[in-house]
Amino acid sequence: MFETAEVGRRIRKRDYKEMVPHLRETLLQAQLRLRDAKVPLIVLFAGVDGAGKGEVTNLLNEWMDPRWVVTRAYEAPSEEERDRPDHWRFWRDLPAAGQVGLFLSAWYSRPLLDRVYGGTIERLDHQLDEIVTLEEMLTADGAVVLKLWMHLSRDAQKRRLEQLAADPDQAWRVTDRDWKHYELYDEFIAAAERIITRTSTADAPWHIIEGVDPRYRSVKVATLLREAIQRRIRQIEAEAAAARVLAQGAVEHAAPALPDGNPLETLERSTARTVLDRLDMSLTVARKHYKTELKRQQARLNLLHRRARQQRLSTILVFEGWDAGGKGGAIRRLLPAIDARSVQVIPIARPTDEEYAHHYLWRFWRHLPRAGRVTIFDRSWYGRVLVERVEGFATEDEWRRAYTEINHFESQLVAHGDVVLKFWLHITPEEQLARFEARAATPHKAWKLTDEDWRNRERWDDYVAAVHDMVERTSTRQAPWILVEGNDKKHARLKVIRSVCDALEAALDAREG
Amino acid sequence: MFETAEVGRRIRKRDYKEMVPHLRETLLQAQLRLRDAKVPLIVLFAGVDGAGKGEVTNLLNEWMDPRWVVTRAYEAPSEEERDRPDHWRFWRDLPAAGQVGLFLSAWYSRPLLDRVYGGTIERLDHQLDEIVTLEEMLTADGAVVLKLWMHLSRDAQKRRLEQLAADPDQAWRVTDRDWKHYELYDEFIAAAERIITRTSTADAPWHIIEGVDPRYRSVKVATLLREAIQRRIRQIEAEAAAARVLAQGAVEHAAPALPDGNPLETLERSTARTVLDRLDMSLTVARKHYKTELKRQQARLNLLHRRARQQRLSTILVFEGWDAGGKGGAIRRLLPAIDARSVQVIPIARPTDEEYAHHYLWRFWRHLPRAGRVTIFDRSWYGRVLVERVEGFATEDEWRRAYTEINHFESQLVAHGDVVLKFWLHITPEEQLARFEARAATPHKAWKLTDEDWRNRERWDDYVAAVHDMVERTSTRQAPWILVEGNDKKHARLKVIRSVCDALEAALDAREG
Repeated sequence: MFETAEVGRRIRKRDYKEMVPHLRETLLQAQLRLRDAKVPLIVLFAGVDGAGKGEVTNLLNEWMDPRWVVTRAYEAPSEEERDRPDHWRFWRDLPAAGQVGLFLSAWYSRPLLDRVYGGTIERLDHQLDEIVTLEEMLTADGAVVLKLWMHLSRDAQKRRLEQLAADPDQAWRVTDRDWKHYELYDEFIAAAERIITRTSTADAPWHIIEGVDPRYRSVKVATLLREAIQRRIRQIEAEAAAARVLAQGAVEHAAPALPDGNPLETLERSTARTVLDRLDMSLTVARKHYKTELKRQQARLNLLHRRARQQRLSTILVFEGWDAGGKGGAIRRLLPAIDARSVQVIPIARPTDEEYAHHYLWRFWRHLPRAGRVTIFDRSWYGRVLVERVEGFATEDEWRRAYTEINHFESQLVAHGDVVLKFWLHITPEEQLARFEARAATPHKAWKLTDEDWRNRERWDDYVAAVHDMVERTSTRQAPWILVEGNDKKHARLKVIRSVCDALEAALDAREG
Repeated sequence: MFETAEVGRRIRKRDYKEMVPHLRETLLQAQLRLRDAKVPLIVLFAGVDGAGKGEVTNLLNEWMDPRWVVTRAYEAPSEEERDRPDHWRFWRDLPAAGQVGLFLSAWYSRPLLDRVYGGTIERLDHQLDEIVTLEEMLTADGAVVLKLWMHLSRDAQKRRLEQLAADPDQAWRVTDRDWKHYELYDEFIAAAERIITRTSTADAPWHIIEGVDPRYRSVKVATLLREAIQRRIRQIEAEAAAARVLAQGAVEHAAPALPDGNPLETLERSTARTVLDRLDMSLTVARKHYKTELKRQQARLNLLHRRARQQRLSTILVFEGWDAGGKGGAIRRLLPAIDARSVQVIPIARPTDEEYAHHYLWRFWRHLPRAGRVTIFDRSWYGRVLVERVEGFATEDEWRRAYTEINHFESQLVAHGDVVLKFWLHITPEEQLARFEARAATPHKAWKLTDEDWRNRERWDDYVAAVHDMVERTSTRQAPWILVEGNDKKHARLKVIRSVCDALEAALDAREG
């Protein structure tokens, strides 16, 4: 989940200076539209200490019209506050219609700290459910709710704290509590992952922001605010226009468009990095090593599989990736190691009529394995947030909602004790082209290549963005995405089978105590 | 909550015969429209054994086109089913687009039984949260979800089981398990109340149906199905019409209206009973007894209040009722018993500008008492589902959603340990008229009477329906509605102060162990 915010996104000083004037202007305009539309905007900041929550809040106060901004930071509850239910102090401070409320350490703070300091998972879940209900109430009433997780990797946090401590002017910012929290980094991240998956709803999703570079994080946050406002304004205008049309019986001219343009998106597409850029695509494996190692891993998998049958431990493997990325080959290297009666490979293509007549998750539920068996999905429910998103087969509402639905689906598999692994088989566009051309030239493989494959290539950048979001939203500790460097097929196949073995082994060891 | 389904609603045989042909015809038409619109309808039956779940399901199979109806009843999970996550078996059976699925003992069955047989409340809540997510997924995808709780009072259930057991042809229907469940009646009802409050959402609310009279429950269920379908069809048509208008730039003629007419609503309004009809409006108290008893209860309240201050136990009292119903008088009889520095009376009228700029619950959160204090709301957040509903100040979406929001709000008060009581001061229309006329004739009271009071009188029946729904949806064990027979002011005042004392005493005894 947080790997998408550890890819080293930065903005150069020169680019920053060029972007900021337009960004400030459009943000301010958006804020005024929000005020006129009488919509409250609630921005919740959370995240790793040192990732710039405070600095960004200060900057937003400078960039927006401060008469309509309230900033609230919470410490341990006062006696006054403890006398009332937990949420009382937040209700008091909710922004009025047209106002922007910037909240630091608000309602997510206590659940996070409770959990890190040893609270049970049940208690955490209960607190989160209360929060979801609160936020649903607010969004149903028309508020825009934006949740920002400011992230730093463990190392980056350490560097940041050391930097501050070394600077005489800034040293006061670093407290013993900060160091204590740094030591609890892993606990924080584990709790944060659960918080984010359970409370990311279609109307109030989390955004994870890489906090290392002050320029990047400032532009990113301001852009997210502006976009959230603009989306709501467009929605209000569309509804008002439809109502007027229905009432008057005539179509009017469109309202003047909002100032648009997204410097960040352009930047992210062209120069900034995604989670896929972290992959070392030059990795290769020597042929000889491949042969021995593959046999070794297959033998290992066979033993583990038999233990899993005995322990009634089910395995669900998902394969996604570029066309010609090597999904089929990787799957075929797993099969010889597993009893054929215990494994199902489910190729996912266009839904049948019957499947189409149900919720899109229905056809995946059908194929869940019985205890101790293995189901391999060759393409999967992730089609919703990949091809259906990119090609527009799903509406924006549908694919945005799907992240939550998918996390909920997989959490039921995990709760049932199943092993769930998801592989993205990644190749470079150049490698794909070479493979397409080789296919076209090989009679017995030419059928594999369709016009659609060529068309998909044209939308490469859109798919990259979709993969990045997918990993951000759905890669969890218990059902992780494994990104596979696929330019070298031998390396890819070994990485896949090894990952399956490692996960099975860990789960079996845990189960057998 | 269930008091609304113990008021003795029946339909006479002659009326039934007159209603059924039209009901069947319109239900069938609605079903065909549903099929054409490719919308799945999911009907979940739950409730007290013997309340007619099975019979109603059979009847619906007869009344609807069975080619598009699937009925599913669940027993203990099979081995096949236990091998997968709990919800797998329900996903398998979900109706396809255009189908009607009638589900007995489906996903609510296990949480209910687990709880009755000793499962923790945390476990129950967790199961319910999973269900809410499931249902949200289904409704977001376009399905209509209807949840029907078929209810019998404890006595009615006993009579029903005895009746069946005595009939040689029916005796097989009554099992040992049924009698065992009858003994656990109170546990069932307590668990059911929690299930219903936590899972009644705006898109998938529960309906509580009085199950004593087979004719009434059949007509009621069939009508609810037909209405749920019709509502969705109208919504689809409105959206399609708006889209066409926007696309074509001209208003078309309205689509032919759906067959409408609701025999039940007419019947319920005119002859059937509401929870208010159960009140014995002739209750009176002799003047002399009133004087001594009032003093006694005030002294009792004073002692209890001082214990509450010490124990930091807060009290929140809500007063709603008819104009001239005696709210003010009842409140004034409480005040002398409570330290003036510890009590706030909050009269709720039109919201201020600032209040209007926030979520409607915001202004009530503001006034929550500090620990050990008392807040009395003279009118309250229930305005949303009473006057705002009846007068159309709130949209249907808004007031339907409000039941859930209110339950969530009050559950936070209860979780904080506060005593929450809600009084409905009830008088008959005749008594109200007499009081209005007396006010008009008394110079120092004439100001109390406004044109609005006279207007509200005209909508008496609408208010009665709103009160009935309010009690059904929001009267819980821990924050109950107390219906007060108010024609005799002395009786009403004593009932109010006594109820406050009893509740405080019980809470203090529990707290002091």
